[in-house]
Amino acid sequence: MEKSKGMLIVVSGFSGVGKGTVVQLVFESMPNLQFSISCTTRKPRAGEENGVEYFFLSEEEFEKKIAAGEFVEYTKTFTNYYGTLKSEIDKPLDRGVDVLLELNVVGAKNIKKLYPDSVTVFITPPSIGALKARLIGRGSETPESLSRRLKEIENESKDICHYDYVVTNNVARTCADEIVNIIRSERLKTSRQNLKNLFVQED
Amino acid sequence: MEKSKGMLIVVSGFSGVGKGTVVQLVFESMPNLQFSISCTTRKPRAGEENGVEYFFLSEEEFEKKIAAGEFVEYTKTFTNYYGTLKSEIDKPLDRGVDVLLELNVVGAKNIKKLYPDSVTVFITPPSIGALKARLIGRGSETPESLSRRLKEIENESKDICHYDYVVTNNVARTCADEIVNIIRSERLKTSRQNLKNLFVQED
Repeated sequence: MEKSKGMLIVVSGFSGVGKGTVVQLVFESMPNLQFSISCTTRKPRAGEENGVEYFFLSEEEFEKKIAAGEFVEYTKTFTNYYGTLKSEIDKPLDRGVDVLLELNVVGAKNIKKLYPDSVTVFITPPSIGALKARLIGRGSETPESLSRRLKEIENESKDICHYDYVVTNNVARTCADEIVNIIRSERLKTSRQNLKNLFVQED
Repeated sequence: MEKSKGMLIVVSGFSGVGKGTVVQLVFESMPNLQFSISCTTRKPRAGEENGVEYFFLSEEEFEKKIAAGEFVEYTKTFTNYYGTLKSEIDKPLDRGVDVLLELNVVGAKNIKKLYPDSVTVFITPPSIGALKARLIGRGSETPESLSRRLKEIENESKDICHYDYVVTNNVARTCADEIVNIIRSERLKTSRQNLKNLFVQED
């Protein structure tokens, strides 16, 4: 049996949509799926460990890696860099391991360009209105950051059509199951299978 | 909410692969899925009813429908016509109902041309050798029909690559679940969803 290459799955979603919980449930259902750890220059939050949630780098270290072409995608937010190392994706894929990346719409677009057979999934709320209400209800945002997030939602909305799949996060478990199903079904695509194995003559 | 159109699913598989059992299990799991009943000129077998397994037509009736352009696809085997009426597909699709068709590779190819967004699934045995052994083991074939079936398998093999998905029938229940997953995932494709519903302003 010839081993086929791993599959790259990219998950995006609006800020506040509950993406983290959904992705975690996907990993619980698929223990062989590998999470690709991103690099960031932001400071670790309480409980976060280097090499678990992120690789925490200094700005200097990050920029050195940019210069060396080590990232498949990176973005700079207002204050921090976020990026995905090529090695973190290619190594497991070559071993036949499926890799899941959590990225924003810009990162997802870059990945799709470099890995055209990657599978992109966008998580939406049942409605944009509900998401806005949830963000406002949280009360954890300053008026500035709230208006920035609402603006971000508007901008990201325009890119949903470029994703392969759109799933709705109404109940996190259901949404995660849908993503698990997508991954399993994509594995059955003719283009991802090695049909040669089928035609091995045994008679 | 704008209702989206139904989805057309075409299932094919080698003769003797156990397609009938798998398809039946798919329908048990998806009560809203509609089976498209084909027309044939072959005589009903014991227990078969007109309008259930097939529409049983005379050769004259069948040829009249061909002339009237009522078929989306039809084939003539050595002794009989088999065909799918356009109305049997379009009516449920327009109502938003998903339709499943069981077709040979020629029929599937024709349908894919007419309905480019249909989903095609090919059911294979774990190996071609095993299928041949099963066919021979049955003992129900004359040497002529056996050699014809083996030849057919060779020919159909060449067309598997044109299908969207390939599923293996090792255990019928597992194979059916895979097809159910494919149908559910295809429904989540961005291209099949009405994103307008998401952007309805509620605030």
